[in-house]
Amino acid sequence: MRFANATLPDGSKRDVVAADGRIAAFAAQGDSAPSDDVDLGGALILPPLVDGHIHLDKTLLGLPWVPNQAAGNRVADRIEAERKVRAARTVPESETGANLVRQVIANGTLHMRSHVDIDNQLGLRNLHEILKVRERFRALATIQVVAFPQSGVLRSPGTADLLDAAVAEGADLVGGLDPVGIDGDLDGHLEVIFGIAEKRGVGLDIHLHDGGEAGIAELLAIAARTKAAGLAGKVAVSHAFALGSVALSTAAETADVLADAGVAIMSHGPGAATMPPLLLLRQHGVEVFGGSDNIRDAWSPFGNGDMLDRAMMIGYRANFRHDQELSVAYEMVTSAAARVLGLADYGLRVGGPADFVAVTAGSVAEAVATRPRRQLVVKAGRVLARDGVLVG
Amino acid sequence: MRFANATLPDGSKRDVVAADGRIAAFAAQGDSAPSDDVDLGGALILPPLVDGHIHLDKTLLGLPWVPNQAAGNRVADRIEAERKVRAARTVPESETGANLVRQVIANGTLHMRSHVDIDNQLGLRNLHEILKVRERFRALATIQVVAFPQSGVLRSPGTADLLDAAVAEGADLVGGLDPVGIDGDLDGHLEVIFGIAEKRGVGLDIHLHDGGEAGIAELLAIAARTKAAGLAGKVAVSHAFALGSVALSTAAETADVLADAGVAIMSHGPGAATMPPLLLLRQHGVEVFGGSDNIRDAWSPFGNGDMLDRAMMIGYRANFRHDQELSVAYEMVTSAAARVLGLADYGLRVGGPADFVAVTAGSVAEAVATRPRRQLVVKAGRVLARDGVLVG
Repeated sequence: MRFANATLPDGSKRDVVAADGRIAAFAAQGDSAPSDDVDLGGALILPPLVDGHIHLDKTLLGLPWVPNQAAGNRVADRIEAERKVRAARTVPESETGANLVRQVIANGTLHMRSHVDIDNQLGLRNLHEILKVRERFRALATIQVVAFPQSGVLRSPGTADLLDAAVAEGADLVGGLDPVGIDGDLDGHLEVIFGIAEKRGVGLDIHLHDGGEAGIAELLAIAARTKAAGLAGKVAVSHAFALGSVALSTAAETADVLADAGVAIMSHGPGAATMPPLLLLRQHGVEVFGGSDNIRDAWSPFGNGDMLDRAMMIGYRANFRHDQELSVAYEMVTSAAARVLGLADYGLRVGGPADFVAVTAGSVAEAVATRPRRQLVVKAGRVLARDGVLVG
Repeated sequence: MRFANATLPDGSKRDVVAADGRIAAFAAQGDSAPSDDVDLGGALILPPLVDGHIHLDKTLLGLPWVPNQAAGNRVADRIEAERKVRAARTVPESETGANLVRQVIANGTLHMRSHVDIDNQLGLRNLHEILKVRERFRALATIQVVAFPQSGVLRSPGTADLLDAAVAEGADLVGGLDPVGIDGDLDGHLEVIFGIAEKRGVGLDIHLHDGGEAGIAELLAIAARTKAAGLAGKVAVSHAFALGSVALSTAAETADVLADAGVAIMSHGPGAATMPPLLLLRQHGVEVFGGSDNIRDAWSPFGNGDMLDRAMMIGYRANFRHDQELSVAYEMVTSAAARVLGLADYGLRVGGPADFVAVTAGSVAEAVATRPRRQLVVKAGRVLARDGVLVG
């Protein structure tokens, strides 16, 4: 199988030769023309997009429009509104989650990390629904699952045991949520979630919306526990708005601590919240990666699961303008996210998986800025989607 | 001509009957079925989108990708970088501007206000190029032109006379740019541009990036001069980041002054700059409207001229989530912008122009959040574009 006339991310023009689901060669163009050629017409090929933060159980995608019902703008208001939306659901999360997985695959995402709500009202129901989705799409996409205490850990008694049970039943990581802002107990919250992670031998991905110095203190505590537990490279903090709400010198000092501890930072390019200083974090050695966050759910009416659209949003919010900066946004939704997810078999290389996205753009920078048409999404040498629509 | 099976912005289901380029009736569905029916299939129809702030002369749309070359992140760095890009151009602004007008029309924008650079190096060259574009598309779209002193007025000697000449040659409004940040002379700058506006009997649209209390002082000075000159309703300030960088009480007091003077505020939903508090401004009676700002030019790699995409960005940055809030973003790119542009013949009503955009959405809120496919763009009862592509 030969995908002819590709432009590689480095700008070189090659044919991609696939065999047995893997990349056999990047051949000079025009070397041969077997009958099963696919002509990419000069399209840019990228490795599969990676969504480092999605909520497959929350989305209402595919249902008629559901207006946002939160009474106010606090995280607690939205948690409350989500309970109402959840109670009114007639379609299970496994169906709406599958709608979203189909859409993200059609847009070129083949690997994702989904947080799944767990609390003492829900129990493990959402987990079970999303494990069904993971199973259903196993051949097409990697779905990592984070056991996410959406209602807090301490303020929702019984959640700690549920998180532990979730990992036992198949969740890949333990989550957390604003230890101070939601649970009001930094050490108590972290003690529980790090305890489960250590006991079960898994990583953590912690939602942190808390801003200012309180948020910084939480980041430092997470870094300290990561080091103590020997979990370097297996812990991420999602959002970390605090890093964008303090002096750059404080952000830089915190970055050094995060880098030393091996804690990664996820940003989705928030709309109204403060943006972590991505370039500064990278300069200090912190792994930063991207994710969609909410998509058409009780939290947000926005989002579409398109990780080039998301890279654009991240770049726009981060004031990226130069090609080199746009490449950072691209890395955040490809290689950097792949490293955080621990994907061993990822990337465009001879011998690597014949997985790629072909887009109508001349360069990586142009792909981020313009969010072009996905001509093809290819997995193991097989075309999964064409022009943004799944095939077969 | 009957456009059957439309959903109106208020949710009602109607057929749109057009005659002689105007809306003859919103008829009950199924009343008749003449052979020239167009079936909208339930699509939502919106009045034409209005772009309140575009730079037709700056765009490089349609050319091969041009990396951003600014040496730094100051406005002055970008002005300097733009001079280099301009010097290296081989395609005239009338061509790239036309590329952009075609794209915005295909996305449903039929009215726009374009700033056009004028300084003592450029003279009126860009104005002449964009007046050609206005003439070329006269039958399809309204293009208002602002004579924009991109290099300042006082620091670019001779610009004052050029602005005056620009209005004499066809520019519709006089522009301005950071009287303090660029020219370092608030009264001197305003004296010149208000002087031309009064002499020529035109309005003003002033770029204001200056933040903090300095920016607020500039807004108050603009409001005072607007009142003194009797220009209420004919003056707009674009960006006004300052309103988002001061205490809400200061923003509210400033809003009262702006509303009283009849000064409108344009926001494009900036990426990294502070966002004016849109709802507060509206509550205090200020007209707020939307625009694209830079699109693939020396200033920004981003942008596509799609005003639903822009409404989404404005809503995302403003933390809009409820349907009522999303409707504000919609108004900013339709009726509010139409009022600011002084469009007398605008809006979906019997007797009004048979101009509309049909989109695949069930409601205005959904249209803003999802930026759906443009099924049809119709002007005077004639289909201009289908599925985002111009016809004929």
